[in-house]
Amino acid sequence: MSETVPTREAIEIAHKRVEPFIHHTPVMTSQFLNDLSGAELFFKCENLQKIGAFKARGGLNSILSLSPDQLENGITTHSSGNHAQAIAFAAAKVGAKAFIVMPENSPLVKINAVKGYGATITFCENTQEERERVVQEIISETGATFIHPFNNYEVITGQATAAKELIEDVQDKLDAIIAPVGGGGLLCGTALSAHYFSPGTKVYAGEPEGAADAVLSFRSDKIQKAPYVKTIADGLLTTLGDKTFPIIKAYVTDILTVSDEEIVGAMRYLWERMKIVVEPSGAVSLAAVLKNKELFAGKKIGIILTGGNVDLGKLPF
Amino acid sequence: MSETVPTREAIEIAHKRVEPFIHHTPVMTSQFLNDLSGAELFFKCENLQKIGAFKARGGLNSILSLSPDQLENGITTHSSGNHAQAIAFAAAKVGAKAFIVMPENSPLVKINAVKGYGATITFCENTQEERERVVQEIISETGATFIHPFNNYEVITGQATAAKELIEDVQDKLDAIIAPVGGGGLLCGTALSAHYFSPGTKVYAGEPEGAADAVLSFRSDKIQKAPYVKTIADGLLTTLGDKTFPIIKAYVTDILTVSDEEIVGAMRYLWERMKIVVEPSGAVSLAAVLKNKELFAGKKIGIILTGGNVDLGKLPF
Repeated sequence: MSETVPTREAIEIAHKRVEPFIHHTPVMTSQFLNDLSGAELFFKCENLQKIGAFKARGGLNSILSLSPDQLENGITTHSSGNHAQAIAFAAAKVGAKAFIVMPENSPLVKINAVKGYGATITFCENTQEERERVVQEIISETGATFIHPFNNYEVITGQATAAKELIEDVQDKLDAIIAPVGGGGLLCGTALSAHYFSPGTKVYAGEPEGAADAVLSFRSDKIQKAPYVKTIADGLLTTLGDKTFPIIKAYVTDILTVSDEEIVGAMRYLWERMKIVVEPSGAVSLAAVLKNKELFAGKKIGIILTGGNVDLGKLPF
Repeated sequence: MSETVPTREAIEIAHKRVEPFIHHTPVMTSQFLNDLSGAELFFKCENLQKIGAFKARGGLNSILSLSPDQLENGITTHSSGNHAQAIAFAAAKVGAKAFIVMPENSPLVKINAVKGYGATITFCENTQEERERVVQEIISETGATFIHPFNNYEVITGQATAAKELIEDVQDKLDAIIAPVGGGGLLCGTALSAHYFSPGTKVYAGEPEGAADAVLSFRSDKIQKAPYVKTIADGLLTTLGDKTFPIIKAYVTDILTVSDEEIVGAMRYLWERMKIVVEPSGAVSLAAVLKNKELFAGKKIGIILTGGNVDLGKLPF
């Protein structure tokens, strides 16, 4: 596994590597949301990606980077969310075994999706310690390779391909790109792609007020936990890692927090006006733009819509 | 206004004419729905079109075909649905006045959308007679040109551009294209584009059991009303017209009916699996494919997803 910050060439290679397996998702625009924001918005629709989220990119790139010997022993991770699906999906694509550790209270729809890709699921109590302990057990028994959901350079490099496509597909130069931040895998990939493929394009993060670890870490120059964790954006609860934090410090301009009400409002605009299903975590970037109109007024802004995996029976509107 | 069945050249001209004003909507695919149907499905996402429906195409083409004198006097139509928005939107694009007659019980969201494009709304009782009477009054007072929602060759020609794009964007030759049928404007356009741009590609229609006028007309060789009208697919309630019926007879292979339960099931797949918002009328084509698996097994099928204008507060799931 790579031990250095992803280079321009690494992202280009990753893009060629994952392209055959992913959707080249569309970049959408909305006159209504341009008028509302006062900016020109370009939405990179990773909610329309395979498995319904950008995480397919990082999962694929990390697994496609493994040696035949490593693949032979399979892959393992712990996740209750989109990363579990991404690893199960990517492992199936290369014919490798996937051992996914999921908290026993995971939503049935996610459990079924992981099963649908043929992965072996081991359930555990929903604590970080238990999740890691069970993964360690699996590694001891099988020799499987652990793939971290974000604190992994191959994962970051894979996520970077989303912003690379956005930059290439938008004819004009973007003034800024906004991505949400949880553990920071997508945000790092976005920042690196902007740095290499569109120098001068600023990168901002959107973060829920109810999981505000990244903004605190960014401002205090030290990885910190969130003061409290309570948000509808359930994909953004994790804290930064030692690989993601330095990249964010170096290449991200600022982190903008938004309330759950602002997230749901942005989500509703995306559903009603753009006719696309976006999960709360995926609507955080738009919420950040709509909250900071003066910052983005008159600018060309790329917005990464990260995922669309939401339970239709439990909508917030 | 044209008084002959649209030619290949008319559709090509219409496409160039409307292109600057519309979204070139994406063609999406879903491995899950391919597996479920046993066919290879290509979804033309007109739910992502301007105004949230393909009707923007016909509205634009008909209005862009008018003379400067006609435009000077404005445009009028009656509609409680997507055609009202299409005419209001297209009139605004060319700077013409739009006089829209809407039933007084129209959904507020549609009234606001029409107002949002700057159109003048006249409310009336919700009977066909009253709608036509009020439109006639407007024509007498203003000299506005009436644009019928489907029984109009410029409208049909505009709708044809959706299937033309689908045919051009899918690399392989399609075995069939399925479109829903209400008054038949989209279905005629689809059938003509298949005939001209992809000879050999069959065209089928999907129709709700609770508005089954087209299948009855098709089989009896005579325009007929539906035996009863009760369906969730509120965009497909109208009967065929004297311009649409002959084209359907000549170029459509068959009309397949589906129940409301099948429509809602297909709609749910589109939302959950493809992450796009599709209205019930827009899910009818997929419902028809899933109901007739043996007919489409192993084939390459184009499916036109017609619209995404749905009240999020009143979802059927």
